[in-house]
Amino acid sequence: MIPRDKHDRMANAIRVLAMDAVQAANSGHPGLPMGAADIATVLFTRFMKFDPKHPNWPDRDRFVLSAGHGSMLLYSLLYLLGYEDITIDEIRNFRQLGSKTAGHPEYGHAAGIETTTGPLGQGLANGVGMAIAERRLREEFGADLVNHKTYVLAGDGCLMEGISQEAISLAGHLNLSNLVVIWDDNRITIDGDIKLADSTDQIARFEASGWVTEQIDGHDPDAIAAALERAQTADRPTMIAARTTIGFGAPTKAGTAKAHGSPLGPEEIAGARVTFGWTAEPFEVPSDILDDWRVAGLSACKQRVAWQKRLDAADNGIKSEFERRMRGDLPATFGNTAEAYKRKLAKDKPTVATRKASEMALEVINEALPETLGGSADLTGSNNTKTEQTAPISAEDFSGRYIHYGIREHAMAAAMNGIALHGGLIPYGGTFLVFSDYARPAMRLSSLMGLRVVYVMTHDSIGLGEDGPTHQPVEHLAALRAIPNHHVFRPADAMETMECWELALAEAETPATIALTRQGLPAVRVEPAPENRCARGAYELATAGADAAVTIFATGSEVHLALEARQRLEAAGHPTRVVSVPCMELFERQTPDYRRAIIGNAPIRIAIEAGVEQGWRRFLGEDGVFIGMNSFGASGPYKALYEHFGITADAVVEAAQARIARMTDAA
Amino acid sequence: MIPRDKHDRMANAIRVLAMDAVQAANSGHPGLPMGAADIATVLFTRFMKFDPKHPNWPDRDRFVLSAGHGSMLLYSLLYLLGYEDITIDEIRNFRQLGSKTAGHPEYGHAAGIETTTGPLGQGLANGVGMAIAERRLREEFGADLVNHKTYVLAGDGCLMEGISQEAISLAGHLNLSNLVVIWDDNRITIDGDIKLADSTDQIARFEASGWVTEQIDGHDPDAIAAALERAQTADRPTMIAARTTIGFGAPTKAGTAKAHGSPLGPEEIAGARVTFGWTAEPFEVPSDILDDWRVAGLSACKQRVAWQKRLDAADNGIKSEFERRMRGDLPATFGNTAEAYKRKLAKDKPTVATRKASEMALEVINEALPETLGGSADLTGSNNTKTEQTAPISAEDFSGRYIHYGIREHAMAAAMNGIALHGGLIPYGGTFLVFSDYARPAMRLSSLMGLRVVYVMTHDSIGLGEDGPTHQPVEHLAALRAIPNHHVFRPADAMETMECWELALAEAETPATIALTRQGLPAVRVEPAPENRCARGAYELATAGADAAVTIFATGSEVHLALEARQRLEAAGHPTRVVSVPCMELFERQTPDYRRAIIGNAPIRIAIEAGVEQGWRRFLGEDGVFIGMNSFGASGPYKALYEHFGITADAVVEAAQARIARMTDAA
Repeated sequence: MIPRDKHDRMANAIRVLAMDAVQAANSGHPGLPMGAADIATVLFTRFMKFDPKHPNWPDRDRFVLSAGHGSMLLYSLLYLLGYEDITIDEIRNFRQLGSKTAGHPEYGHAAGIETTTGPLGQGLANGVGMAIAERRLREEFGADLVNHKTYVLAGDGCLMEGISQEAISLAGHLNLSNLVVIWDDNRITIDGDIKLADSTDQIARFEASGWVTEQIDGHDPDAIAAALERAQTADRPTMIAARTTIGFGAPTKAGTAKAHGSPLGPEEIAGARVTFGWTAEPFEVPSDILDDWRVAGLSACKQRVAWQKRLDAADNGIKSEFERRMRGDLPATFGNTAEAYKRKLAKDKPTVATRKASEMALEVINEALPETLGGSADLTGSNNTKTEQTAPISAEDFSGRYIHYGIREHAMAAAMNGIALHGGLIPYGGTFLVFSDYARPAMRLSSLMGLRVVYVMTHDSIGLGEDGPTHQPVEHLAALRAIPNHHVFRPADAMETMECWELALAEAETPATIALTRQGLPAVRVEPAPENRCARGAYELATAGADAAVTIFATGSEVHLALEARQRLEAAGHPTRVVSVPCMELFERQTPDYRRAIIGNAPIRIAIEAGVEQGWRRFLGEDGVFIGMNSFGASGPYKALYEHFGITADAVVEAAQARIARMTDAA
Repeated sequence: MIPRDKHDRMANAIRVLAMDAVQAANSGHPGLPMGAADIATVLFTRFMKFDPKHPNWPDRDRFVLSAGHGSMLLYSLLYLLGYEDITIDEIRNFRQLGSKTAGHPEYGHAAGIETTTGPLGQGLANGVGMAIAERRLREEFGADLVNHKTYVLAGDGCLMEGISQEAISLAGHLNLSNLVVIWDDNRITIDGDIKLADSTDQIARFEASGWVTEQIDGHDPDAIAAALERAQTADRPTMIAARTTIGFGAPTKAGTAKAHGSPLGPEEIAGARVTFGWTAEPFEVPSDILDDWRVAGLSACKQRVAWQKRLDAADNGIKSEFERRMRGDLPATFGNTAEAYKRKLAKDKPTVATRKASEMALEVINEALPETLGGSADLTGSNNTKTEQTAPISAEDFSGRYIHYGIREHAMAAAMNGIALHGGLIPYGGTFLVFSDYARPAMRLSSLMGLRVVYVMTHDSIGLGEDGPTHQPVEHLAALRAIPNHHVFRPADAMETMECWELALAEAETPATIALTRQGLPAVRVEPAPENRCARGAYELATAGADAAVTIFATGSEVHLALEARQRLEAAGHPTRVVSVPCMELFERQTPDYRRAIIGNAPIRIAIEAGVEQGWRRFLGEDGVFIGMNSFGASGPYKALYEHFGITADAVVEAAQARIARMTDAA
């Protein structure tokens, strides 16, 4: 038990650092760090298991600041506890370009930042993913190696965002007793009193999803400790509603929206210092208080040492497998396994929907990679995401490798981020491509953080047919390609599908979306393939009989249409090449020479893709023809839709011949 | 009271039509229509207020099939009740190209379809918006003219999606007693038993948000009627949990996932017919049953006649205003008001952030247009969406014109769709542009339905500064421009901001996003403007001193950088023109001649926009230079960020000079 006055001084160190850093930056959010300082102090000095000198220790407890605007809470903690990345100079440089102390916590900027937060609700759902990963890995490697908790600090905003309901209900359903959410119940949002916009009984809401709940005074260290103590042995996830005062200690702004998102100003800060009895200069923490914090930071060390001994004592196979998994390396044998499968494909040349081809690839992948953790947002049979190896996980049994995420695309994506952040697992999850919109805020964070998460997005065009425009993606390929650091794959057949899967798995720091068809497609890659041709993003699939008059670019389900058009154009005496473009982002990374060669010199360029044009002009130049969608789709059998919207081999041939005729006239 | 056997026959008519139509289409969802047929029969024969011959009667009750995959429920009802658009031939053509009976209900295909549903949870949130609109208009026009209910039929999927929590908590907070949600509690999802993915106590969850709840047997007409009866006078929103059997009546598939989303097959259908005692041919409804339904359809007529009399008896000003509002025409005087404001702007040339310019525009608009209904997702002071005219709405007082939507971007967007669908109001709502991702599924539906909804998206680039990459939109302009039928405006100063607002309001069938800056911008439009120059999407803002060597395209906050670069290039002897591109979509609609003239013939083309390049090649051709973002942003003061990412007048000048030098060398 820490004496109250010592607790107060330690907590006030957080408050003062937060006030001062925000003031110096002239922007930021002092309110949350000041309000939640007591909670954080109790949590980090008495409960959290971590080692500042080994911040990536796999069995550490995770702390997720879901209310990421309160970043100074986290930075203060990391500095005070002795994490080397966050020095006092970094705190001084809060929110400055190049500092590790960005406006919101950015994963990768400094050890100890477990996830990027700021977009509200995401951290909460990341925490659910981390807790899933812990339970799954505990099942696999035993409690000697994996046995930790995930703590999430969430604000009103996190709980108002819809993603929170998806996360809460999923956590309750899976009974994640290793998850503790602390709600910073300060009753203030940006617009003012929470009563302007919300009247939810959050306690009742969490209980409706099967959580244990606690209601405490968030400024009473004993109450905080007692609640956290009970959470250690809870048999269900715990939500602690901690009533706090935003901007605690600020003379006039405490408890008001004015303390939320801007500097308190010199007068408020001076007043708070008086209240806290704080006489040190800005950015100076009295040495006794800093010592108390550093001691707290060191005290967790013993647990890590004991854990390391257990790991070292483990069976050598287990130890090396655990270490491989935590490093994120793929098994050394995977390359050969994939090769063998692809040789078989080259022989079999199956005509299948690429969603089915993806399932076939996953049968191989899931057999070779015990780290994959599959799932779908209630479209298992449509996304073809479940294979023989992947039994479902349930509250009672975490030995499986498949998650029925429910109709919760957003939480699925954010939980996959949490699983990837935790380490040791490679998550993939499915939904319809059109519903990438529902998951998009979390998909963006996969990209921003650079996480290996694979989105299996089936029903990737009007080719899904009768479900109609609400279910037909039209703009989604373009919209996903617009996200930095996101690989959008659209394979054309079973071979390309496997190649794309290999590329997605090989990239440890770039998430992938694999867009897959509902409708069957012929094999277009018929040579025995010694190399992964998709790796360069675009490649010449069919060469022209002579100097090319026409180049046709295509992706996915339109590649075979391009080949059909090529055949007819060649027959009519127009040498035509076909370029398959399974991944524009990888193509952009190739050398200018390669790109020029692939774009080629044919006077006529045509691209065909059952989506909007945006993004294709790089391939087409000003004069090229785009054949695709420029409106929403429609409900009807898919072949009728392709005809109706003019996405056909005929359309390609006609466009080419019209251009050829025009050029002949001009000559 | 309808005798039970008559009720059963009427309900079975829905079931048989649904089975047969899905079978004929060889795709679709028979399970929900069969399971919810009893609910729908009671609701439409005893409670709903409507007139099939006047389907757009403003004071009708709204019925929203949030579980849109059950579209055959709605189509059956519309046919049986005598709505002219849905004939038996349309039912026969279910899910065929060109039919009104699309796979999911499509707003605009047939009168009686109140909203497009399918993407789950959307209809529920639309219903919240419709109920808000009703309460607001009742306050304004009185209960004689506006006094109706909104009924929503929602499935498990709707309730699992996060948007449902946002919608439920908003409805509870605003105490929408005119809203009744019936939960089709069939315990089945696509993957199987709901227990695979969910354990939520939905009753407790709704109660936590302040709803009245009911639990009934969804196949007991008396229980259904009693619950709906109580809902008529409830003082809070009502949720009726109706326990049903999916695919009710199918011999082996009822109560299983097999009844959900595919044809039942001839055997099941034959068995169900036996159970129902149904001997009629497919698509034939026995005349006595059809008569019973048509009588039900006619019986509501009296209420409409009485209402029409009340409207006709109303004060002439009220009647004409009500009719104008429901037609969606803007006040005749608005044009002049806007002109006067723009003349003032031309004189004042204010240097303001465009978010502030938008507030200034809204002060004029909200004064002139009583139909605007503003709001923000808890960023009122940042989005500048609130003006003097717009007091907040609360549960106790709907006389206001502003909604504190809370931290619920998704429900805000979907509720705005509902408000626009209801008619009589023009909703606008604000958040940060980066959080358009959270609202995107609903924004897509604004576009698909063609609704006048205005999204006020501020903090539209790295120009927001210190909040960092989680808050800095980079890909969002491109991602929104990819959506068909969506106008993305990015005005450059106060004048363009007003012009864009005028254009957004004038388009009754295209939603708009107005992207606005946090940082201040100088006035770039300094001539007294006789015409709305933004109306053509792109226009020549500054002409070249002689034959142009360089054209610079720019939007929003980068237009003044383009002008600065132009000045320096002209001074260096390089004639340079600047094209402002406030709306790419409007530009695409112009004549080829106009577009060619705006693109121009300058040998050097440069575009500058603080977002990703995607979409700009149409302006740039293959050789043009794009100056913008190709990664996520960073945390820091905004001027430092613009320098860091090279989005400056310097960069434009350097790029132009490098090209000029290369061309000189080549010559």
